[in-house]
Amino acid sequence: MTDLESYADLDLGRSERRGYPEAVYCAGKTLEQVAGIAAAVRSRPDVVTLFTRASPAHAEAVLGALPDAFHDPAAGLLAWPAPVPAPRGGLVVVVAAGTSDLPVARESMLTARYLGRETRLVVDVGVAGLHRIVSHLEMLRRARVVVVVAGMDGALPGVVAGLIAAPVVAVPTSVGYGAAFEGLAALLTMLNACAPGVAVVNIDNGYGAGHLAAQIAAP
Amino acid sequence: MTDLESYADLDLGRSERRGYPEAVYCAGKTLEQVAGIAAAVRSRPDVVTLFTRASPAHAEAVLGALPDAFHDPAAGLLAWPAPVPAPRGGLVVVVAAGTSDLPVARESMLTARYLGRETRLVVDVGVAGLHRIVSHLEMLRRARVVVVVAGMDGALPGVVAGLIAAPVVAVPTSVGYGAAFEGLAALLTMLNACAPGVAVVNIDNGYGAGHLAAQIAAP
Amino acid sequence: MTDLESYADLDLGRSERRGYPEAVYCAGKTLEQVAGIAAAVRSRPDVVTLFTRASPAHAEAVLGALPDAFHDPAAGLLAWPAPVPAPRGGLVVVVAAGTSDLPVARESMLTARYLGRETRLVVDVGVAGLHRIVSHLEMLRRARVVVVVAGMDGALPGVVAGLIAAPVVAVPTSVGYGAAFEGLAALLTMLNACAPGVAVVNIDNGYGAGHLAAQIAAP
Amino acid sequence: MTDLESYADLDLGRSERRGYPEAVYCAGKTLEQVAGIAAAVRSRPDVVTLFTRASPAHAEAVLGALPDAFHDPAAGLLAWPAPVPAPRGGLVVVVAAGTSDLPVARESMLTARYLGRETRLVVDVGVAGLHRIVSHLEMLRRARVVVVVAGMDGALPGVVAGLIAAPVVAVPTSVGYGAAFEGLAALLTMLNACAPGVAVVNIDNGYGAGHLAAQIAAP
Amino acid sequence: MTDLESYADLDLGRSERRGYPEAVYCAGKTLEQVAGIAAAVRSRPDVVTLFTRASPAHAEAVLGALPDAFHDPAAGLLAWPAPVPAPRGGLVVVVAAGTSDLPVARESMLTARYLGRETRLVVDVGVAGLHRIVSHLEMLRRARVVVVVAGMDGALPGVVAGLIAAPVVAVPTSVGYGAAFEGLAALLTMLNACAPGVAVVNIDNGYGAGHLAAQIAAP
Amino acid sequence: MTDLESYADLDLGRSERRGYPEAVYCAGKTLEQVAGIAAAVRSRPDVVTLFTRASPAHAEAVLGALPDAFHDPAAGLLAWPAPVPAPRGGLVVVVAAGTSDLPVARESMLTARYLGRETRLVVDVGVAGLHRIVSHLEMLRRARVVVVVAGMDGALPGVVAGLIAAPVVAVPTSVGYGAAFEGLAALLTMLNACAPGVAVVNIDNGYGAGHLAAQIAAP
Amino acid sequence: MTDLESYADLDLGRSERRGYPEAVYCAGKTLEQVAGIAAAVRSRPDVVTLFTRASPAHAEAVLGALPDAFHDPAAGLLAWPAPVPAPRGGLVVVVAAGTSDLPVARESMLTARYLGRETRLVVDVGVAGLHRIVSHLEMLRRARVVVVVAGMDGALPGVVAGLIAAPVVAVPTSVGYGAAFEGLAALLTMLNACAPGVAVVNIDNGYGAGHLAAQIAAP
Amino acid sequence: MTDLESYADLDLGRSERRGYPEAVYCAGKTLEQVAGIAAAVRSRPDVVTLFTRASPAHAEAVLGALPDAFHDPAAGLLAWPAPVPAPRGGLVVVVAAGTSDLPVARESMLTARYLGRETRLVVDVGVAGLHRIVSHLEMLRRARVVVVVAGMDGALPGVVAGLIAAPVVAVPTSVGYGAAFEGLAALLTMLNACAPGVAVVNIDNGYGAGHLAAQIAAP
Repeated sequence: MTDLESYADLDLGRSERRGYPEAVYCAGKTLEQVAGIAAAVRSRPDVVTLFTRASPAHAEAVLGALPDAFHDPAAGLLAWPAPVPAPRGGLVVVVAAGTSDLPVARESMLTARYLGRETRLVVDVGVAGLHRIVSHLEMLRRARVVVVVAGMDGALPGVVAGLIAAPVVAVPTSVGYGAAFEGLAALLTMLNACAPGVAVVNIDNGYGAGHLAAQIAAP
Repeated sequence: MTDLESYADLDLGRSERRGYPEAVYCAGKTLEQVAGIAAAVRSRPDVVTLFTRASPAHAEAVLGALPDAFHDPAAGLLAWPAPVPAPRGGLVVVVAAGTSDLPVARESMLTARYLGRETRLVVDVGVAGLHRIVSHLEMLRRARVVVVVAGMDGALPGVVAGLIAAPVVAVPTSVGYGAAFEGLAALLTMLNACAPGVAVVNIDNGYGAGHLAAQIAAP
Repeated sequence: MTDLESYADLDLGRSERRGYPEAVYCAGKTLEQVAGIAAAVRSRPDVVTLFTRASPAHAEAVLGALPDAFHDPAAGLLAWPAPVPAPRGGLVVVVAAGTSDLPVARESMLTARYLGRETRLVVDVGVAGLHRIVSHLEMLRRARVVVVVAGMDGALPGVVAGLIAAPVVAVPTSVGYGAAFEGLAALLTMLNACAPGVAVVNIDNGYGAGHLAAQIAAP
Repeated sequence: MTDLESYADLDLGRSERRGYPEAVYCAGKTLEQVAGIAAAVRSRPDVVTLFTRASPAHAEAVLGALPDAFHDPAAGLLAWPAPVPAPRGGLVVVVAAGTSDLPVARESMLTARYLGRETRLVVDVGVAGLHRIVSHLEMLRRARVVVVVAGMDGALPGVVAGLIAAPVVAVPTSVGYGAAFEGLAALLTMLNACAPGVAVVNIDNGYGAGHLAAQIAAP
Repeated sequence: MTDLESYADLDLGRSERRGYPEAVYCAGKTLEQVAGIAAAVRSRPDVVTLFTRASPAHAEAVLGALPDAFHDPAAGLLAWPAPVPAPRGGLVVVVAAGTSDLPVARESMLTARYLGRETRLVVDVGVAGLHRIVSHLEMLRRARVVVVVAGMDGALPGVVAGLIAAPVVAVPTSVGYGAAFEGLAALLTMLNACAPGVAVVNIDNGYGAGHLAAQIAAP
Repeated sequence: MTDLESYADLDLGRSERRGYPEAVYCAGKTLEQVAGIAAAVRSRPDVVTLFTRASPAHAEAVLGALPDAFHDPAAGLLAWPAPVPAPRGGLVVVVAAGTSDLPVARESMLTARYLGRETRLVVDVGVAGLHRIVSHLEMLRRARVVVVVAGMDGALPGVVAGLIAAPVVAVPTSVGYGAAFEGLAALLTMLNACAPGVAVVNIDNGYGAGHLAAQIAAP
Repeated sequence: MTDLESYADLDLGRSERRGYPEAVYCAGKTLEQVAGIAAAVRSRPDVVTLFTRASPAHAEAVLGALPDAFHDPAAGLLAWPAPVPAPRGGLVVVVAAGTSDLPVARESMLTARYLGRETRLVVDVGVAGLHRIVSHLEMLRRARVVVVVAGMDGALPGVVAGLIAAPVVAVPTSVGYGAAFEGLAALLTMLNACAPGVAVVNIDNGYGAGHLAAQIAAP
Repeated sequence: MTDLESYADLDLGRSERRGYPEAVYCAGKTLEQVAGIAAAVRSRPDVVTLFTRASPAHAEAVLGALPDAFHDPAAGLLAWPAPVPAPRGGLVVVVAAGTSDLPVARESMLTARYLGRETRLVVDVGVAGLHRIVSHLEMLRRARVVVVVAGMDGALPGVVAGLIAAPVVAVPTSVGYGAAFEGLAALLTMLNACAPGVAVVNIDNGYGAGHLAAQIAAP
């Protein structure tokens, strides 16, 4: 344990204080550090711990200590213990504007699911063909909150917000041609959405969006 | 009415479609246009209409047509009809980090109030003196959502999000020294908040924050 | 005439070379310079000359030399000779997303009109209420080119491009809250539009958009 | 087909609605996803499908399902069915300012060609030696639209626009020394072109430019 | 003199050390400070002193102490003693792309002239009509250095550099529509000029360009 | 007092907690708010209170409640009680690169002085004439910390840091031509200073620099 | 030695002039250059020389010439001679907000230590859980200066500065999601910290922070 | 030759028109293209041709066609024919602020040398130790022009310009910590240099600087 303390101070009380489990952001951590944290986590199976932004090597380090953890390679996410909690609160619908936005959308959906919400995923419904998003309107209107993940022009969250009463969590992705500037264009679009009701999070931050959605849809 | 159509297409159905009243963004509109819209609004007293970003001259134009409208000059906001709806849903707490953030915070609080939520306002509790925000912790934990308005470093929303279970709506303001870059610094801080659960809106957009908070705290 | 040469070299051959009249960009010119150019223009009534970005004082200077010029104060545009040429080529439809985008939209429409195109103007049809733009679909599909003027999130041009076969000329405006960054957000959105067929011009450049539209809709 | 639906919603109606074929943006898609889409495309040989931004691995995945597709490795573009449609409408001339701009220029030319336009390509005619572009003036003036692809200072589109009556589609490329900022400098130059008639698209977006040109030169 | 020392330390030795006179940058100085410096300057009539960026009030303050100073209000420049030195070294040609660039171009020309060079001024020869700059080619080729002042796309310096053997000093100006970003677009264009031989100075810095040109054309 | 609580929560304990007095940032506050705070301050004459960024109107509001306050209009600073505390700790030398940097330099010097340090001010010693700063070397080397205030290229702090053993507090100012970008250029220069030992603060933030210097030079 | 002079001019006098040892910035230097410098350093064992930003290959090159040098691979730092000097002056506490900030924090701590200060390291105490930093308050208040290393929102330095009397050296790191923009967000947060007393250095510049801290804590 | 025309239009007349040889910018060109150009160059040994930004693979391609070309791998530059022309005109001194700036400095020096100027190189004389640059003052003052190459804060060109009468060509490099932003910080510093007489070129553009210097020092 002394070694763990030299690089991490696990916030064991967070689950009590905020009511939500801790997440370990793997990017920037060494494999040794991630493995050490995973080993420490094994002692508290009562709360879910998420490992986000996990590269394949990070995932291997986690699975070494927690072999029965859930792992979604596309989303770069692991969860332990693996069983999904029984859903409580409102429905969280996650929308991916394009196929390239799927990894972030899945990270978002899985986070909300492990935080105890019912989730649905809708894919490839960008504004270039409005009929696609409109065809899902009935389901969107059943949601307590809708997470919309979009790169390029990032216009979809504003369009969705104009169609429903529930709040929209908007996630810009770093997908697109040069002047997308790694997600900056989509980020600005979302911050400037004409329709009110759009909550913006960081670029490619599917975890943050799923967490926020789970809080909004809390019972 | 023909003249009105030459510059505005009021979205009369929005209240039914989304369940929230329409808002008229006055900045960039001429006094004649604002007066014309105010006159048209008079014919539908059943839903509240907000006029936001109203300069004193804009306000005068609105009050010419709707003399009994509510007007908060500091927030640049008018509402008609003036009576506040009976509150439903959860509590919305609005926090202003500094005195200079008050106009935006008031715009946010009044919007949530006219959209039917109970509201509270907390002022001058920036992170430079942590004891100030901590002293309000009991009220913050009663909220269904907390709106945090902050300029300069914009650090307060992340600190508040780390202390409570409810989501935080973060509003950067254009207050600060040169490298605040008119709110850009605070905006980036909020998007990068370490604590999950922070929903970011546009710089100085108190109306958008209040609307989003009302949706999150909806019954 | 010697004095004129000290500050301007009128491109008298431009009408022959490119087939379109010259425009005098007034911003940044002194009143004396604008008046001198207007006086020189009087000697060639066979081609239309436009004066763009004309402040009220600039307009007065032009009208001093060309009292019978056409003048649209909102658009900051003058034209001489005033009679509109008989329209040739295809239809140019100009769409303003919001009321605040009207001055730029009018500049665009008037430019196309004085360059010899038939024009239509549609107002206040932003993406926050999709039914508004959809209700104009029949007219949009009749156009040879559609100019879409939008501030804030600038999402409308991409949505329109997804609905029609004709090209869209997109004009970002400097309208919006702080993170609109004086039109930068809308500009990036338009450059990243998911639907192909969007031609972007400079922020608030209604003249450029009208000129480009007239070229696209040329007979 | 159920698997395809989990990551893509092909817009089969786009060809009817807009009159132009669909394009599959490969960047950001996995090889499995691209292969799945290619397999689905095989069932509709009546319209051309383009695959853009295809890496060699993407191309292999497409060619696995559509072995007789056209493939231009430099442009990263595939088309199926391979035969070029008979040209209709006006001439599209594509100009590459420098040799390094060729891949984007070819993507643009091939797109316009597969969308049914006659095309010509002109190479290495940057503004550092004006005589080079001027020597092509006769052909440029025959075009219904000219696509100009340029990196570094991006000055060529404005120069070309000043020489011809037809509109110019300007494509900035990410070619250049440090302060080119990956195409930002060229993008800004093009948006600020002194000569009217310049339609700007995203950095390195040859596909978008070719599509827009095909629309402008439509019969 | 004690008071002068509290806000300025005149670099009396600069003329000896560098061979060029001192310039007093008036912007940001109070009228009292400018007047105090002007009074101190009176004691050294042997070298020219320039006052740059002088508002009308600054100019009045200078002329109060040095009534016989030369003053060009458009350029915001004063010089004392007023007589122009006899020209030595090579010819400096200053080119203004548009009429709006004239004030900066005049500041540049006058600086070079007071630093002892022969100067010529060419106006309104932007790249939108190439024939205009080409018509001055003979004079441009006689120059030891050419200063080119341009706003908007800032493309002219690169075009001129491609036509002549002498170096070009490029001065971006803050003239243009929104995406000119107060001269940033022109600045980047000039830094990325395809033709070698372009020396860039700060936005609107006519003084710096004139000084640099005088050094390049020194005997 | 109830009214004061509606817009400010004075941090009366700050002096005990941190050992330094409170400062009231006037920019963005109304005159009523500043006057109310000044009135409240009168009840605690035992610690110094600073009012920074005070416009003339703000100053009048403060002086209405605290007529015997110290006021430096150029620095926009007031202090109450007015007597300067007896100096303790090390010497703070404040250097202004140019005359235009004087207001910020004075704000910095006065802050350090009211926080109890001995101070010296050196003016107009920019890097364009190195002999000027070198002539003050003996005094610079006596300082416990040197504050260097510079606009334009902001190069002076790095040069000073290379000459002395004490740390340098660098303050960028918003002085300069266009590409100074309101102090951004100087800010970046200072952050990238080749010589270690440079502590950077916000643009034009003389107060912050003076406070930091006082802490560094504390006994 | 002649070869060394072709690429480096070692500042042998720096230790005398400034009182601190020289540091060799390895990034951007070839292995041959680094090896050559290391060989030259061997002749002056009386002062410590640091090698910073050393990749594993750089480290090997240094160790080839100075086999008994100290080497911390995570921090990319070597020191020779290896023995740590006896500490003088005040205590330097280095705080790393997250585990990913550790390499920069270690570089900072080691630099201060080799410059002769006593150091302590505190890890993983970000603002998302305030109780973590508060639990170290007693040690923080014993420090003469605190170095705070933080990525993402960069909020920790401002919070720490509000809790203690000593100055804080803030180091932004390039850790975080997209809108962290490689440390820009954290940098701006720190420059805008509400609490005075924050000295900002360059992104990821642990060496600079450690050097500055050693100067501030000098005896 | 037909194949060459498909990707390059060699400007054979440039040497006559401008008096300087052509340079082939290799970055972004394929090996086949570079080899083809090199083969075409062999037919005109009367003028020097430079190949810049040549990777090792590019260099091999050039040397395949021109085996006796001069090659400097560090500078990424080749020249053919290899013999250096007899120097004419004034002396060009090239200064590299740090060792890491050497590749760009060498590219600059070699370009000037192959364009017919006498050159000298000075290395590692950054502003952190002023005595280093001052020790070369005599040679600097003999130059007709000085090229100063610097990364990080980019302060050296302004300091040199303040010491000499000749113009300075400033080359920012992409060397430095995070907030150097790949050379942007140094670029801005140089554009804002307090001392007049600084001509700025693109980041890392040693070729451009050497060319400009050769023009300035032309006989």
